[in-house]
This record gives sequence, structure tokens and C-alpha cells, in this order.
Amino acid sequence: MIKYPTQKKVYQSKPISTKNRGMGFETLIDQTNSYYLDKQIAVIHKKPTPVQIVKVDYPARQKARIKEAYYKTPSTTDYNGIYKGYYIDFDVKETRSKTAFPIKNIHPHQIEHLKAVHEQKGLAFILIAFKAHQTYHLLPFDKLYVYVKRSLKGRKSITYEEIIEDSYAIKESYLPAIDYLKAVDLWLNEK
Amino acid sequence: MIKYPTQKKVYQSKPISTKNRGMGFETLIDQTNSYYLDKQIAVIHKKPTPVQIVKVDYPARQKARIKEAYYKTPSTTDYNGIYKGYYIDFDVKETRSKTAFPIKNIHPHQIEHLKAVHEQKGLAFILIAFKAHQTYHLLPFDKLYVYVKRSLKGRKSITYEEIIEDSYAIKESYLPAIDYLKAVDLWLNEK
Repeated sequence: MIKYPTQKKVYQSKPISTKNRGMGFETLIDQTNSYYLDKQIAVIHKKPTPVQIVKVDYPARQKARIKEAYYKTPSTTDYNGIYKGYYIDFDVKETRSKTAFPIKNIHPHQIEHLKAVHEQKGLAFILIAFKAHQTYHLLPFDKLYVYVKRSLKGRKSITYEEIIEDSYAIKESYLPAIDYLKAVDLWLNEK
Repeated sequence: MIKYPTQKKVYQSKPISTKNRGMGFETLIDQTNSYYLDKQIAVIHKKPTPVQIVKVDYPARQKARIKEAYYKTPSTTDYNGIYKGYYIDFDVKETRSKTAFPIKNIHPHQIEHLKAVHEQKGLAFILIAFKAHQTYHLLPFDKLYVYVKRSLKGRKSITYEEIIEDSYAIKESYLPAIDYLKAVDLWLNEK
């Protein structure tokens, strides 16, 4: 078990955190996945952005050029793959709010997809970055789903305190930047 | 265990096979995956085609319009997902040859990806359609890899007989069209 530096150390004495600052959360996750792949720890990829292609040119001696296309709504989450034989499926979310994560940040079809994965015994979750606090969290689908159901009648967001309570914290580090598989390990130990 | 009709019946008395004929193998697999998803049998999706977006227009009151983009080489296989807790990862290939499947039909990065999945204990394989014979086969990665290694020094293809010997046959049917998870079950029983 790797012992993480205390929060004070991470944010005060290490240059690391400054280096990562400003990078999007997705970029840090993509870098982390490249690290996992290189080190043969896991095979997790981001899916390409789905695009509806309308018009394509095939100029002679050149490669096909798409002249007209539109973004499509993805029907699944952005990330999936395998870790220690487990199917992993998640989406990456970022919020500027200090107090809560709005559930509308997750599309209904993503929730449906995570639910289907969960029912097939996969590891379904979301990764949330609170930019204001510079904290990162792995929230398992079953915990998330409680709040999704609550939002149908009541509060439309998950408070920061609730996320602290129900998620696995991920400390930012250097390599990999966001070692979320450590949080997956903690989760698996409790399963 | 579903008892399949004999091959004679499938191709002579059922209108089914005629109906599917002409459809691309990928289309049949996509329909099969929709069926699996609807019936809560598995969650397996085709990944979007990766596209490098160069120029985008944002006309007022309209959705973003991609004006210039190019196809990118995919770094993984086209299909992945989860079935009974197992991570599933495969690509779909079709050949018109009667006698052999050319290994060059599989990109080297796809082989690398399937190898990495196999090492993470996922179910990595390819689905091959022999159009001339109207036969469908699930070839597990470890069997495929033997022929990939052979191709470095010798024969650049896998003969039809070798595929019959080393793969799990998939019978074409009505719903779903290509019930390849039956072949996965057979494979799992032997593991």
C-alpha cells in the first residue's frame, strides 16, 4: 500500500500540483490511462467523440476529407476498459462549485448505461473533480444512484459533504497524475 | 442450451438466412448487440469511428457544424463491453476468400490491444465471417496469436480448416442474427 503524503504536503511543498493545475481533469485522466497502459496495470481508453458524417470528399491521391459532420450525443460513458479482470466503466466530471455537484452534469443515458453495467457486475462509477477544493473523488454507481433517485423529487445535486462521505478520495500526484485505480482497489476491498 | 437447426435447415427452409444475406457482418453484430442490451444479456457497444476534427462552424441558433475533419486510425478494436461480469473485447472481420483468412486484415495495433486485454484476463477475440461459406467463427486471441507469430516467418494467413479447428462456430439465426455469446459460453466452459 502506497502511503500518500498528507494534504498539506501535496498542496504546499510539492511543485507537482502547480504543474497539473490548469490542465483539464479529462487530460489528467487520459495521461493516467496512458501510464496504466505503459506499465501494464490496466487497459482503459477514452472512446472517440461520436460524429455523424454527412459529406466526404475523396480527392485523388489524398486521404478522405470529411466536409460536413455533426456531433452526436454519446450513448455511453467516455471511458471503459479492464483492470485485473474487472470491467471498468466511468465518466469524468468537473465542477467549479464549492458546495455541490449538480446531477444534471450527468446525462440520463449515461446513468442508464452505468446502471446496465452495474447490473452486469462491472465496476461502474464517476470521477468528480471539485476544482475549488482541488479534490478528486470516485463515486460508485450504487451511491450515485441514490442521489439520482432523490433528485426526481427533491434536491438536484449531491453536496460536497455527501460526496466526501460516499466516495473514495483520490490524491493528486505526479505519475500518474490521478491514480484512481488506488480508489478502485479500496472499493474492491470493501466489496 | 438452445438446439440450433441443422445447417441444411438453416440454408434451405428458413427465410431468415436470405433476409440477413447482403447485410454487412458488422451490421448483424450491431443488431445482435442491440438485442443483448434490450434483453439485459450483455452491454456491448461499437466504439465511434475516430475522427480528427480540424474546423468547426458555430452558426447562430444552429448546432456546431464540422467543416473539416479526417479519419484517424483506431488504436483499439471496435467492440467492447461486459457479459456476466467478463470484460469482452473484439473486432469483426469479413473475408470473401474460400480458403483462408489473411492476417493483414487485422491491424498490428489491434493485435497489440487484444494481447494487452488478454493479459489483463479479459475475453479477447475476433469474429470472422467467411462470406463464401456463410460461416461465422469466434477465434480466441491465444489461438489467433499462434498464427500471427507464424506469419512473421511463414504463411501470412490462417486456412479455413485451421479456423474450423481452432474457433467456436456461430450459427446464423433470426433473433439475434449472430448469437456470438453462445460461442463465448462454450469457450468459458472449456477455460
